[in-house]
Amino acid sequence: MVDMIADKMKALVNNSSAIRAMFEEGKKLAKEYGAENVYDFSLGNPNVPAPPEVQAAMCEIVKEEDPVVLHGYMSNSGYEDVRQAVAESLNERFDTSFEKENIIMTVGAAGGLNVILKTLLNPQDEVVVIAPYFGEYNAYVSNYDGVVVVVSPDTRDFKPNLKELEEKLTKRTKAVIVNSPNNPTGVVYSEATIQKLADILRRKQQEFGTDIYLISDEPYRELVYDGVEVPYLTKYYENTIVGYSFSKSLSLPGERIGYLVIPKEAADAEEIQAAANVATRILGYVNAPSFMQKVVARCLEAKADVPYYNRNREALYHALTEMGFHCIKPEGAFYLFVKSPIEDEKKFCEAAKKYHILIVPGSSFSCPGYVRIAYCVSYETILNSLDSFRKLAEEFHTK
Amino acid sequence: MVDMIADKMKALVNNSSAIRAMFEEGKKLAKEYGAENVYDFSLGNPNVPAPPEVQAAMCEIVKEEDPVVLHGYMSNSGYEDVRQAVAESLNERFDTSFEKENIIMTVGAAGGLNVILKTLLNPQDEVVVIAPYFGEYNAYVSNYDGVVVVVSPDTRDFKPNLKELEEKLTKRTKAVIVNSPNNPTGVVYSEATIQKLADILRRKQQEFGTDIYLISDEPYRELVYDGVEVPYLTKYYENTIVGYSFSKSLSLPGERIGYLVIPKEAADAEEIQAAANVATRILGYVNAPSFMQKVVARCLEAKADVPYYNRNREALYHALTEMGFHCIKPEGAFYLFVKSPIEDEKKFCEAAKKYHILIVPGSSFSCPGYVRIAYCVSYETILNSLDSFRKLAEEFHTK
Repeated sequence: MVDMIADKMKALVNNSSAIRAMFEEGKKLAKEYGAENVYDFSLGNPNVPAPPEVQAAMCEIVKEEDPVVLHGYMSNSGYEDVRQAVAESLNERFDTSFEKENIIMTVGAAGGLNVILKTLLNPQDEVVVIAPYFGEYNAYVSNYDGVVVVVSPDTRDFKPNLKELEEKLTKRTKAVIVNSPNNPTGVVYSEATIQKLADILRRKQQEFGTDIYLISDEPYRELVYDGVEVPYLTKYYENTIVGYSFSKSLSLPGERIGYLVIPKEAADAEEIQAAANVATRILGYVNAPSFMQKVVARCLEAKADVPYYNRNREALYHALTEMGFHCIKPEGAFYLFVKSPIEDEKKFCEAAKKYHILIVPGSSFSCPGYVRIAYCVSYETILNSLDSFRKLAEEFHTK
Repeated sequence: MVDMIADKMKALVNNSSAIRAMFEEGKKLAKEYGAENVYDFSLGNPNVPAPPEVQAAMCEIVKEEDPVVLHGYMSNSGYEDVRQAVAESLNERFDTSFEKENIIMTVGAAGGLNVILKTLLNPQDEVVVIAPYFGEYNAYVSNYDGVVVVVSPDTRDFKPNLKELEEKLTKRTKAVIVNSPNNPTGVVYSEATIQKLADILRRKQQEFGTDIYLISDEPYRELVYDGVEVPYLTKYYENTIVGYSFSKSLSLPGERIGYLVIPKEAADAEEIQAAANVATRILGYVNAPSFMQKVVARCLEAKADVPYYNRNREALYHALTEMGFHCIKPEGAFYLFVKSPIEDEKKFCEAAKKYHILIVPGSSFSCPGYVRIAYCVSYETILNSLDSFRKLAEEFHTK
């Protein structure tokens, strides 16, 4: 009468996300020592509040909209007016030509990725990911009995190793997931990189007589620094499907709101759109939360507080490199991916806890030997943490 | 280069929910003939607005709560204060003794069912359902490669056929799903029925040396008429897991908010709670929508407008039986399950469309020969539809 949970879940519970475990630990430490004395860099949980447009939209909508419509069911793919607004906003910004049919509102990017993987994957289909990558991709692919194929990290600059990627594409490759700006490195793929990637995918499609979908996971699209451009991938490769989230751009991670873009140029686009609609329903999402659909539709022009994150980025990057830590300067997202001063980066993360610093081992991103520091915290936390980082640096003789 | 979607999805897209197809068709008809001339009884989409407490709570929360916390990540199982409030409200109402650890906030009941099935099911595990039942259970069980075992309907009174249920329990039975008040029949399980069911399950657990979970899908708990009681199942059977939704009680179906109750008495309760937390994350929900968690926590005492539904129930039940249609009088939920005057009820539903009446074939609930009429519409729709129902009755010579 023991061990009633599913076998697949047992391993998952045991290896449960180190990121989340750290988050829970941070809450405990904060209770014990006071939140101001704990430097929790574990989770991509924006400390910057949602832009003022969000609160304004929430109040307006509550007043203006018929509650029966506002809180009711709609098509599983989302309200048509919301999908239309999203399509138009994308067209305006990226010179694309999407229509509402190309947009499926989702329960965040995580929901969107699950919907598209459920839609596409047969058991044993391969999904290529490029290390370092968000570890939850493993679980999402495994949910549909797909197989994750990892392209190893290029630790010189954390740009994708396209040569190895090409070698790892097979007849069974159903999709490649890319994530730019990247979690955990902050790397942004340049137009040249994307063009090379698209060429490789097209060549391999022709060689195998298959379609290979490029799934672009883009929660960090709006968070870029120094004027860096993030090319819109559907313009470079026909079989691109975009997963977007408002979690980071509008600081709404708990609300679970995002969308998929399935362009008409993608192979079997209409079938995929129809199946994604069904997948949204049967995975139990049913639809993206209705009120938040209406809210984001009114906030498509709202801007994330990029200057705030940039100040954090500059302060932490300069302080840590000054202390002798090594990392590339991120161009986007809100993470530093720092080389661990000892090979076993998990031990390093454990040691950091002594100084009330919470950071995540690179193994969670298939890139051991590094640690991720999420700097989406308050600027005060950055400043207050520097003494502790200095002690950590001294303990590990980084200089 | 065709047929890129997953094989499992192909069948699902083809047989996509007749209920949802009808909903989409209803929207088209409404555009063509005007919404007031279409009698759409297809979907359980409440026409009664959310109770005033919901709007009040929404406005208060926007004003009072820190947006960083309000829209941020929390534990995947939900805000602790919300879970605590839910537990206390249940304890108050049902004399239970839940704590926050027993409550997991979910993306509606559909999300909750997916989470618990993902948590429990190994491939080929059997899940027993009692016809007629909500057809989406098939998809939810299939998501985790479980096998649905159907107990056939007892069309005399639509109470569960417990004798057949007992015969269909095997060593591989992982769970039994019950749904009272029932969709589509409106039947409410009496205390005596539940006690018999619990006895059978206990007997079979002992015989097989297994645990069999009773999953109680309870979105309609608050919608009962004539003072009928809905017993709280955890009090009758230890291995009960409850899935609840605020979709119907607070008229919030689009918001996707509900919870699971995993009582400490259930076998492996702690392991299940931990695994359900992980399942919530990796299925891509991550957590139940944060704002709506806070809203429902403030509306736990709010009441659904049961008198409104009751007026609909009385009006439609009396009119239809008067016209010669046959159905049991529902004690709960907001559906009439009416015997089709011809064997092929799909043909009957097609014929009804001529009169702009949209109803759902019983085959969608594994009970052909019947149709479901969702009376969660406006009272005016009921009254206006009666002429059309009369014509339909004449066409089929119901008298």
